[in-house]
Amino acid sequence: MQIGLIRVRTLEAVGAVDRHGPLIEGAFPGLRVDCYCIKDQPSGIHDDESEALATPKVIELGRKLESKVDAIIVSCSADPGVEELNKELHIPAIGAGRSAAGIARSLGEAIGVITITDDVPATVKVGLGDHFLAWRKVKGVETALDLESDASYANTIDAARELVAQGSDAILLACTGFSTIAIASKIAKASGIPVVDPVLAAGSIAYTLMLNGKG
Amino acid sequence: MQIGLIRVRTLEAVGAVDRHGPLIEGAFPGLRVDCYCIKDQPSGIHDDESEALATPKVIELGRKLESKVDAIIVSCSADPGVEELNKELHIPAIGAGRSAAGIARSLGEAIGVITITDDVPATVKVGLGDHFLAWRKVKGVETALDLESDASYANTIDAARELVAQGSDAILLACTGFSTIAIASKIAKASGIPVVDPVLAAGSIAYTLMLNGKG
Repeated sequence: MQIGLIRVRTLEAVGAVDRHGPLIEGAFPGLRVDCYCIKDQPSGIHDDESEALATPKVIELGRKLESKVDAIIVSCSADPGVEELNKELHIPAIGAGRSAAGIARSLGEAIGVITITDDVPATVKVGLGDHFLAWRKVKGVETALDLESDASYANTIDAARELVAQGSDAILLACTGFSTIAIASKIAKASGIPVVDPVLAAGSIAYTLMLNGKG
Repeated sequence: MQIGLIRVRTLEAVGAVDRHGPLIEGAFPGLRVDCYCIKDQPSGIHDDESEALATPKVIELGRKLESKVDAIIVSCSADPGVEELNKELHIPAIGAGRSAAGIARSLGEAIGVITITDDVPATVKVGLGDHFLAWRKVKGVETALDLESDASYANTIDAARELVAQGSDAILLACTGFSTIAIASKIAKASGIPVVDPVLAAGSIAYTLMLNGKG
């Protein structure tokens, strides 16, 4: 099954755009992932304004991909454009935020959410419903770029520990930048509870489609 | 990762108990599944009474499995004993109903549910929340055993078509007997919309745990 994965952060370096592809391909046999990114947003989505700017770009890119792929993954926990693409296109569009929420609901009653933004993405909050317990923004981080430092790595682990202390029985990482730095399994080890990685969650939903013979 | 899978239907024939194991092992590399079944319930769970009878048996079996496996799957869409096992045991217990609902939420806005019972299992109804649209009981079926006939197979496809006509954009199979007869991909082909198989959904949730380095 061929997936088109849309990054909401503009990346120029060779290999950087493609980074979420191997995460999914390595975990889900039979899924092939080509990655694309929207233009002119090097800081990605990190607040309402940057989300509003990105959404039409995601939709435009999704339209271009429709004839080339079996499904689209929008690799952002805010799911920009996902609802619109599902209404318009003849192939499914999968949002990382909604996917992570759906899977987390099955793993815990009281989910702790880690973000890079000043609130929990609506997709995640609504998706978790009464399974939502609490959230933490990673200290010192304003965009996904800031996650790629040793300090942020340590601060993310700290945020998870605080959420566990508050009673979380599972953790949802509400930014696909956490997938880029592959921190989910480290947090699971440090915290002792299940952790949901948003890119792998979207892969898992795509895999469900594939197991049913879609593409 | 070693899974202990609990069937809620008592099966005697060689190979019959194990039937859900290969479904999961074939789809999710690295998951190993041993299957067990509760005693004295050859008709499985098909109403409130049979569910009440099965629940303490599932809990007892789950306790016995705790030291042998990394996670437990309760292979029934009503998730009998899952909440209790998660409170009591040190390993996760995964319910097929809740798993299917979590995954279906990510695939559609208006989910159609197919059952063998006179109502939708509470786990599925609550899990779907406002993503639930409508449901159909398969004609002529009272227990999971009845699914294993050509007539039931055709009636299940008919139920799916009716749910599509009613506006469903994805279908959830709310009995693991549908997994036993491997009908999900047939329904997906006949209906043209995504279908969620409850045993594979539970496997998908277990796989999320494994990708995080649990077991």
